[in-house]
Amino acid sequence: MAYELYYWPSIQGRGEFVRLALEASGQVYRDVVRGKDGMAAMTRLMSGRETPPFAPPFLKVDGLLIAQVANILAFLGERHGLEPQDPKGRWFTRQLQLTLADLVVEAHDTHHPVASNLYYEDQLAEAARRSEDFRAERLPKFLGYFETVLVANPDGTAHLVGADLTYADLSLFQVVEGLSYAFPKAIKRMLKQYPNVFALRDSVAALPRIKAYLASERRIPFNEDGIFRHYDALDQ
Amino acid sequence: MAYELYYWPSIQGRGEFVRLALEASGQVYRDVVRGKDGMAAMTRLMSGRETPPFAPPFLKVDGLLIAQVANILAFLGERHGLEPQDPKGRWFTRQLQLTLADLVVEAHDTHHPVASNLYYEDQLAEAARRSEDFRAERLPKFLGYFETVLVANPDGTAHLVGADLTYADLSLFQVVEGLSYAFPKAIKRMLKQYPNVFALRDSVAALPRIKAYLASERRIPFNEDGIFRHYDALDQ
Repeated sequence: MAYELYYWPSIQGRGEFVRLALEASGQVYRDVVRGKDGMAAMTRLMSGRETPPFAPPFLKVDGLLIAQVANILAFLGERHGLEPQDPKGRWFTRQLQLTLADLVVEAHDTHHPVASNLYYEDQLAEAARRSEDFRAERLPKFLGYFETVLVANPDGTAHLVGADLTYADLSLFQVVEGLSYAFPKAIKRMLKQYPNVFALRDSVAALPRIKAYLASERRIPFNEDGIFRHYDALDQ
Repeated sequence: MAYELYYWPSIQGRGEFVRLALEASGQVYRDVVRGKDGMAAMTRLMSGRETPPFAPPFLKVDGLLIAQVANILAFLGERHGLEPQDPKGRWFTRQLQLTLADLVVEAHDTHHPVASNLYYEDQLAEAARRSEDFRAERLPKFLGYFETVLVANPDGTAHLVGADLTYADLSLFQVVEGLSYAFPKAIKRMLKQYPNVFALRDSVAALPRIKAYLASERRIPFNEDGIFRHYDALDQ
């Protein structure tokens, strides 16, 4: 019944959304690739015949092998109360998670607009152009959307959906943290425009289990191998 | 009970994945924005207070407003038998759909690697670089993955999951059709390498309801405003 999480061992990356859901709901899990022989185990599962993942992260439990962040979170959300039980709330939570996933792709592509398998240094000019558009157009559009959702929540602005914590809240926290690391100047200019988004970031960080997790060695620091990378040239 | 689909009226785009699921399962639906005053109705729903979508497509039915393609398909799949009922098959179908969605983003970004709100003509050099990587690295990786999944299916190579049609099959059909339109030369070189992927494309096209749909006026032709665009310069 203990969860096995498979993800790259030296970055937060997409695995972090799963880690946050496991931590916030108090689950026992093993971050397999950070342990002995973990990389070999991950490679083995990826080339396995049954329900092979296209890419990490994936979660192994009870004979299931589940990949894709939004899918893993829906699975965990159902099981551990991180998703509303009513259909309207459930489908909306899943929609928000998928919208956050879209934002994550765009944040990644600011430093890799040409190809993931090239270095950032091989696509500097393209990255500068893409980042300029991201900061000016996309970031305000996404953050403005989540601000609207918080303000419109009939149960109050403390959560994206309903009156309780969902994985969409946790993921918004993570995205805002990542964006603040990658684009500190741009985010600083936006603090007052999206007050409820940043208030949610702060309240998630203060949740006892999340606070303990963030202070632990289990939380890998942001770095320039992950999705959210800080390059001065991309934050002017 | 009739479905209302909201999407841009002149492109297949992401709406097409939803149209195919509705058509294949024989649902009555209204493609609202293609009708009178449809655009105003879509705009109204997007700025509505309750569970607002970030972007089209979205589906309205029974008091629910559901956005994000993978989410809409999971909803329709559960209701209309386009998803296995066993957990393993269900989560895997959803994973495959999300992987197809990732491929769709990458196919789109071949012609818009810098910004969606600029013209293709404003990012010609970047598009050429990104397309080269897409054709050489990403396309074989994705098509090879779906070929592996088909070959590994214990119920046979006719479907991605289990022994029956799922929306993942429909979506793979659509992606292969789109890629064949956008990159005819690259796809022609790949026909023999991924025989089961192309056989699935053909068998979906031959399904009576899909065949009728494709021959109807409801099927919008591919064009250079959609996700899959043909530019000679990107298919060398």
